[in-house]
Amino acid sequence: MAEINDLVQKIVKFRDKRDWKQFHNPKDLAISLSLEASEVLEHFQWKSKEEIEKYIKTNKKNIGKELSDVLYWVLLIAHDLNIDIEKAFNLKMKENEKKYPVKKAKGKHAKYTEL
Amino acid sequence: MAEINDLVQKIVKFRDKRDWKQFHNPKDLAISLSLEASEVLEHFQWKSKEEIEKYIKTNKKNIGKELSDVLYWVLLIAHDLNIDIEKAFNLKMKENEKKYPVKKAKGKHAKYTEL
Amino acid sequence: MAEINDLVQKIVKFRDKRDWKQFHNPKDLAISLSLEASEVLEHFQWKSKEEIEKYIKTNKKNIGKELSDVLYWVLLIAHDLNIDIEKAFNLKMKENEKKYPVKKAKGKHAKYTEL
Amino acid sequence: MAEINDLVQKIVKFRDKRDWKQFHNPKDLAISLSLEASEVLEHFQWKSKEEIEKYIKTNKKNIGKELSDVLYWVLLIAHDLNIDIEKAFNLKMKENEKKYPVKKAKGKHAKYTEL
Repeated sequence: MAEINDLVQKIVKFRDKRDWKQFHNPKDLAISLSLEASEVLEHFQWKSKEEIEKYIKTNKKNIGKELSDVLYWVLLIAHDLNIDIEKAFNLKMKENEKKYPVKKAKGKHAKYTEL
Repeated sequence: MAEINDLVQKIVKFRDKRDWKQFHNPKDLAISLSLEASEVLEHFQWKSKEEIEKYIKTNKKNIGKELSDVLYWVLLIAHDLNIDIEKAFNLKMKENEKKYPVKKAKGKHAKYTEL
Repeated sequence: MAEINDLVQKIVKFRDKRDWKQFHNPKDLAISLSLEASEVLEHFQWKSKEEIEKYIKTNKKNIGKELSDVLYWVLLIAHDLNIDIEKAFNLKMKENEKKYPVKKAKGKHAKYTEL
Repeated sequence: MAEINDLVQKIVKFRDKRDWKQFHNPKDLAISLSLEASEVLEHFQWKSKEEIEKYIKTNKKNIGKELSDVLYWVLLIAHDLNIDIEKAFNLKMKENEKKYPVKKAKGKHAKYTEL
């Protein structure tokens, strides 16, 4: 499997060949992230549990492409803001471990503030 | 740098230790993705270009954590839906190359439908 | 019941007393709209149908406040962009009537493009 | 100008003629609200201040329709959850007055927690 950095390199190369860096201020990048996340969500809207199961079987490719769009912006924002996404991710996971201790959080969907 | 799969394994392990799979239907997972993307966006709201530049310098850690939350859900959704995110990503990048040919798209921020 | 314009007047008065017009460019206003809509959505996340029913009974006030935040931004954006929201609404409803003719759309949750 | 209730009546009549109440659980209604807010936001993405000004002049009708979609879902959610939106709105505005006292908030775009 690829390393994260390989994906980042592909994205930056794609972007720079099109001379799009000039439009890529953090606010608009984050808007893109949000809009693409909405497009993922749209796939599951109005559908019942059963309809969703069925839908996924025949739409994996499309859903995969929408998820990739979100991944694209996550990695590009981290790159442009000079954030080490792997380091940040590991830090966040450690924080999550503390926020949601297994004993307290097991089997519950409550927010950490309400555990 | 880590491979994507290492991150996925960390996420799934974290989730399963807490017995949260039972809540993780695609619709709610996608809602999480969308809500976390909104939290990234919130960092840049109301701020001017200059204020954003300044803000990033002193808030890299926080922004990195929010981006990690989005990454967490992208990877978990792909995992649960049995989507190979790397393959999907490469497919999407190829599609983007076609949608936005360098000649047409260079230096423009128009959607591919308007190029 | 109040006329829409009464609400608009309250919003604009509230805003102008705080001298916030200077921050209210359309992009940031629309970000606010999106963030507040996410906050409405957050109330229903992870909950089953039964949990949602129960939740609504004891959280009407909170949900009402989040909906009001969305309404606030809809009306303020329309005001600032010099859009007659009532006229726009009636126009959109007429369009919806055409997009979703009763005969075709009755009892279906499909998008008009798939009817 | 119309009263809010007139709009609500139009929406409910439109919905019920299509027998769509069966799909309208709170979670999916709130997803709609969020998706439509994203569509408003999309209009302003990537554009500079000057481009936005120009864009608004020639796209008032389209933006008005997107705002109407958001208004549609705000009012329908309030209706279905048996929330008096006007009362909720007035309550929220009073709360806003307290959260953002003119003296403290004037000319600042900080969140009330940071004033």
